[in-house]
Amino acid sequence: MNLILISADEVKDGVATLHDRQARHLHKVLRAHPGDVLRIGLINGLIGRGLVREISRERAVLEIRAADRPPSPSRLELILALPRPIMLNRVLSQVASMGIKKIHLINANRVEKSFFSASALQPYALAERLRLGLEQAVDTIMPQVTVHPRFRPFVEDLIPALLGSSATGLIAHPDAGAGLAEGLTQHTPIGPVLLAIGPEGGWVDFELKMFESQGFRQFTLGPRILRVDTAVPALIAQAELLLANISAPGTPFRA
Amino acid sequence: MNLILISADEVKDGVATLHDRQARHLHKVLRAHPGDVLRIGLINGLIGRGLVREISRERAVLEIRAADRPPSPSRLELILALPRPIMLNRVLSQVASMGIKKIHLINANRVEKSFFSASALQPYALAERLRLGLEQAVDTIMPQVTVHPRFRPFVEDLIPALLGSSATGLIAHPDAGAGLAEGLTQHTPIGPVLLAIGPEGGWVDFELKMFESQGFRQFTLGPRILRVDTAVPALIAQAELLLANISAPGTPFRA
Repeated sequence: MNLILISADEVKDGVATLHDRQARHLHKVLRAHPGDVLRIGLINGLIGRGLVREISRERAVLEIRAADRPPSPSRLELILALPRPIMLNRVLSQVASMGIKKIHLINANRVEKSFFSASALQPYALAERLRLGLEQAVDTIMPQVTVHPRFRPFVEDLIPALLGSSATGLIAHPDAGAGLAEGLTQHTPIGPVLLAIGPEGGWVDFELKMFESQGFRQFTLGPRILRVDTAVPALIAQAELLLANISAPGTPFRA
Repeated sequence: MNLILISADEVKDGVATLHDRQARHLHKVLRAHPGDVLRIGLINGLIGRGLVREISRERAVLEIRAADRPPSPSRLELILALPRPIMLNRVLSQVASMGIKKIHLINANRVEKSFFSASALQPYALAERLRLGLEQAVDTIMPQVTVHPRFRPFVEDLIPALLGSSATGLIAHPDAGAGLAEGLTQHTPIGPVLLAIGPEGGWVDFELKMFESQGFRQFTLGPRILRVDTAVPALIAQAELLLANISAPGTPFRA
């Protein structure tokens, strides 16, 4: 935990009172003592310092001051075929730590239906995984996660709204002819970029066609089949690098 | 498992006999039956097909034919401050799936000494995690992992040999002024590229100076602090994208 995330209702007159996991973590893992100064962040707010006034297993009291902005959010939005729960947990923290603020978990032919009743999808469980990612990355802006148990209404009804007039949609598929670089630079994206990543076993043809009919373009990550907890950070990292270059052309790539 | 990896000593006259984990996996997870054809690969060799002749929990017999080359290996080599065992296991599979063939696990000030006696570092355990990564990515070339419990001899004695006359060395550090793109393109790398990634909590100054004295340049992955199972795939993916662009300049980036 590189940041102690605090919610507004835990703060009164510049003093935060923490319980449960946070208090235990401060006490047992960070071994904080009265007088210590820790990095804190207000959920969906500013980052600053907290002076520990009181600390025990049950309760931590910090005098806080926050004036720094969190790092810039990503322009990327993730559309992810719902992975199995253990992988979902891992990926949510990864994605939150990389600054993604919109995550759409969707159904697909090769998603097991039972995954949609997993406890990992309960709002409290989702928030906990996202929070771990933010605390890791020193960010405060909580990502929004939406869950879509029906594929077709998501693609037909929601995708047009998500794309709006300015967003770019890209869908990962091993057999695509183009890489992510071509996908992102052939038409310069001006708004958000939606990246769709399939389930283990991949998208079926029908799903690819549905996305394409909404304007999504296919791209490949290369010949290697990666697990979702490897593919997702790899893809986000490449897309961020490409978008940074598109916004500031000239360097560091050669013509 | 997208590939059944088979070692030379399991094959005789074009017939592979598998036991234990592989047989159980074929039987229980893949539910293979006699007559099924599965993708197989020979460790450090070719990729092809295996026709299932016999199958039980204990034993699987496949008639194999292999004529396809595995995907190209990466030019990247990873120098990684030894992570805690659970993370090491995860990262080894990730790195193997991304095509890295040389991994140096090293000591650093902020590495817990007990990690070096973890069972995850036993040769059999390492091979198992690498194998999972290869089977995921449909690759056959087993990466080499070396373990260096002493930091100073590694940097002073081994790094010069690893760099040779043509390799490029880069070390990740949050406070570096340049990004990976600058690090890789300011001096066009012609040989292997060594990427050094620190422990949770980062490198200490002495370590950064030691690497720099051997010609390593610092770069930053950005303001966010990522866990090693996120930072490693992100970094490898960006470096691969940059190296592909350097080798084939012109596309897909703009001048």
